[in-house]
Amino acid sequence: RVNGDRLWDMLMEMAKIGPGIAGGNNRQTLTDEDAEGRRLFQRWCEDAGLTMGVDTMGNMFMTRPGTDPDALPVYVGSHLDTQPTGGKYDGVLGVLAGLEVVRSMNDLNIKTKHPIVVTNWTNEEGARFAPAMLASGVFAGVLTQDYAYARKDMEGKNFGDELKRIGWVGDEEVGSRKMHAYFEYHIEQGPILEAEEKQIGVVTHCQGLWWLEFTLTGKEAHTGSTPMNHRVNAGLAMARIMEMVQTVAMDNQPGCVGGVGQVKFSPNSRNVLPGTVIFTVDIRSPEQAKLDGMRARIEKEAGEICAALGVGCSIEAVGHFDPVTFDPTLVASVRKAAEDLGYSHMNIISGAGHDACWAAKVAPATMIMCPCVGGLSHNEAEEISKDWASAGCDVLLRAVLETAEI
Amino acid sequence: RVNGDRLWDMLMEMAKIGPGIAGGNNRQTLTDEDAEGRRLFQRWCEDAGLTMGVDTMGNMFMTRPGTDPDALPVYVGSHLDTQPTGGKYDGVLGVLAGLEVVRSMNDLNIKTKHPIVVTNWTNEEGARFAPAMLASGVFAGVLTQDYAYARKDMEGKNFGDELKRIGWVGDEEVGSRKMHAYFEYHIEQGPILEAEEKQIGVVTHCQGLWWLEFTLTGKEAHTGSTPMNHRVNAGLAMARIMEMVQTVAMDNQPGCVGGVGQVKFSPNSRNVLPGTVIFTVDIRSPEQAKLDGMRARIEKEAGEICAALGVGCSIEAVGHFDPVTFDPTLVASVRKAAEDLGYSHMNIISGAGHDACWAAKVAPATMIMCPCVGGLSHNEAEEISKDWASAGCDVLLRAVLETAEI
Ligand SMILES: NC(=O)NCCC(=O)O
Ligand SMILES: NC(=O)NCCC(=O)O
Repeated sequence: RVNGDRLWDMLMEMAKIGPGIAGGNNRQTLTDEDAEGRRLFQRWCEDAGLTMGVDTMGNMFMTRPGTDPDALPVYVGSHLDTQPTGGKYDGVLGVLAGLEVVRSMNDLNIKTKHPIVVTNWTNEEGARFAPAMLASGVFAGVLTQDYAYARKDMEGKNFGDELKRIGWVGDEEVGSRKMHAYFEYHIEQGPILEAEEKQIGVVTHCQGLWWLEFTLTGKEAHTGSTPMNHRVNAGLAMARIMEMVQTVAMDNQPGCVGGVGQVKFSPNSRNVLPGTVIFTVDIRSPEQAKLDGMRARIEKEAGEICAALGVGCSIEAVGHFDPVTFDPTLVASVRKAAEDLGYSHMNIISGAGHDACWAAKVAPATMIMCPCVGGLSHNEAEEISKDWASAGCDVLLRAVLETAEI
Repeated sequence: RVNGDRLWDMLMEMAKIGPGIAGGNNRQTLTDEDAEGRRLFQRWCEDAGLTMGVDTMGNMFMTRPGTDPDALPVYVGSHLDTQPTGGKYDGVLGVLAGLEVVRSMNDLNIKTKHPIVVTNWTNEEGARFAPAMLASGVFAGVLTQDYAYARKDMEGKNFGDELKRIGWVGDEEVGSRKMHAYFEYHIEQGPILEAEEKQIGVVTHCQGLWWLEFTLTGKEAHTGSTPMNHRVNAGLAMARIMEMVQTVAMDNQPGCVGGVGQVKFSPNSRNVLPGTVIFTVDIRSPEQAKLDGMRARIEKEAGEICAALGVGCSIEAVGHFDPVTFDPTLVASVRKAAEDLGYSHMNIISGAGHDACWAAKVAPATMIMCPCVGGLSHNEAEEISKDWASAGCDVLLRAVLETAEI
């Protein structure tokens, strides 16, 4: 078993970097706080005897050598970046649990045939630069580095410049590493494990996603002196599309979700009907057909809504992944570890996207989940218990040991 | 008649200060650009022999003396501040036409019994600091200076500090001046005069307004891993309120309007359901009963919409004025001036709020309007012709002369 107190102390120490305003964190990707978090993680890893590699996307790979020079490494990781008003555990738990696994192996003097590589992926959240899981996406070859470098934040700064600015452009070619297996331990970010009173989620699948960025073009005009029948009201079109997305998601129950998190009105003045409205619809489903069906229906009905109002409508897919089925052997190994340790467990489908989804494209991959209070995540009030954190880390240690071979 | 070329040249010269991105202006109140515009106006006025007074709200009063030391002045004015993506004429026309009236009187060596005071009111637009017509509201005693000074922009800067920063806190007590009459010349900002092919709008009334700022409180949560039935979706509540406001306005046709220009999602991240949504509903009507009826219905139905979704809802009135009836004598004088000059004209109700609405609380007041292309305003593409501009200025000169007595 791992040292749960040590894991918890690392979590609390990391949370001091980029504190939020309500007990959580604001350590968005490629900010000065991100750089500081990376340095702390690097120091801890080097103290534990790991050696660092960094690729041109800023992904960090901290290696514990194996006994067989020809054996590919087992990767364990997640991300240290957070949402603007994020929690202390989302992503961070998976990275630091990877390090705790290595520290426990060191304590117990365990050697493995395969090297272990603890990994921190750049820009998993996608909050500052869409899409999410950007750097693992480039690693897996589903996105290009040029595309990633050109991604812009809301202030117009681009990913490539910001990665350089914080000093974390590495020299490794991205995606050049080969993996024997990839494990990611993460909080559930949903309410199921807590409601079912299970300590461990054995993650069998991850639902797929589309992020559809709408740009609606209305006529910028005075809210007072523009008669109702003269309006080309892009804000009203947005409202109707939001309601329609809700209807589409409800028509696809159980399992599917749809909603809007980001909205930008221009010029965003109380007495000006917006000339431009930009917003992103987030839809997800574990079933490919439902996911694509929802997208098609939303695009069709949005076109009708806008046409009826005379509003221009363009839609860009700024994020996407297909539903994922995780590697059955690794999934079984996680389930067996939970059983051997006597932890209550259940199969679960990940509602959120994770770097593991992209890793699954290039290697056998799976995930382990622990509950979080009230299912709350992407919220500074995100909370887990020390016991939950260490139980999942125990499972991670066992599954990694089985896969990396003692 | 006035010198239309000179008026036009002043408009074009002023438009160079705080240029927009699409041919219009961004010279928002209490910015460096506002200060620069004020200095240019001051210089022009002083060149025309006017003397300046400035009050503690930054309102500028440029006086041409009258022949009777006991006669109260006739005020002529509007505002030099603009929307963030505003036009070159909204407000500016009324201030510079006031100056052109004085310059024409100088040319023709006309003396009046009553002094003439050309006025620039601070923060008419309300774009940076709500509400609109803030400084004329304090002048008229409907708002307090303490309230005005404490108004905050989106960055949290307050009005009082910003007025001081740009160096335009005057020494006159606000509202201490008494007016014989107040005239305001403004572009229509709506489509009626152009459609009816009239050169002059004789403004008989101004519709009343409520700005209702909604703060909706949902549960900040992950868009992917939060099942539909676990959501407390403040964004969806906003969408439903927007649609409801549209319905309420349509149910109150003809004449009433309702819409939303400003929206803020927090944290505004693609994969986070908003914890807080703030937006402002703008409703207007020339009829007091309809205006208050719309407000009551909107507040009631918004409460129901939010309750059904479990979303918290608080509503603050951040702007308000009652419908205004302008002074019948001054209105008749404007109509007669248009007739004498042979300009086509019609009665019109102002759709937008103006400083004249507050001035009407403390003095006989009225307005003159000229058409604008396509009824477009609060848009950088706002346009008028030189002929339209000078026709209205001719009417202003005549009506002012009649009221100020030669
Ligand atoms: N785990 C997580 O929140 N990832 C961000 C990508 C997503 O929105 O699913
Ligand atoms: N004229 C004008 O646009 N004033 C701003 C106040 C309003 O929204 O009516």
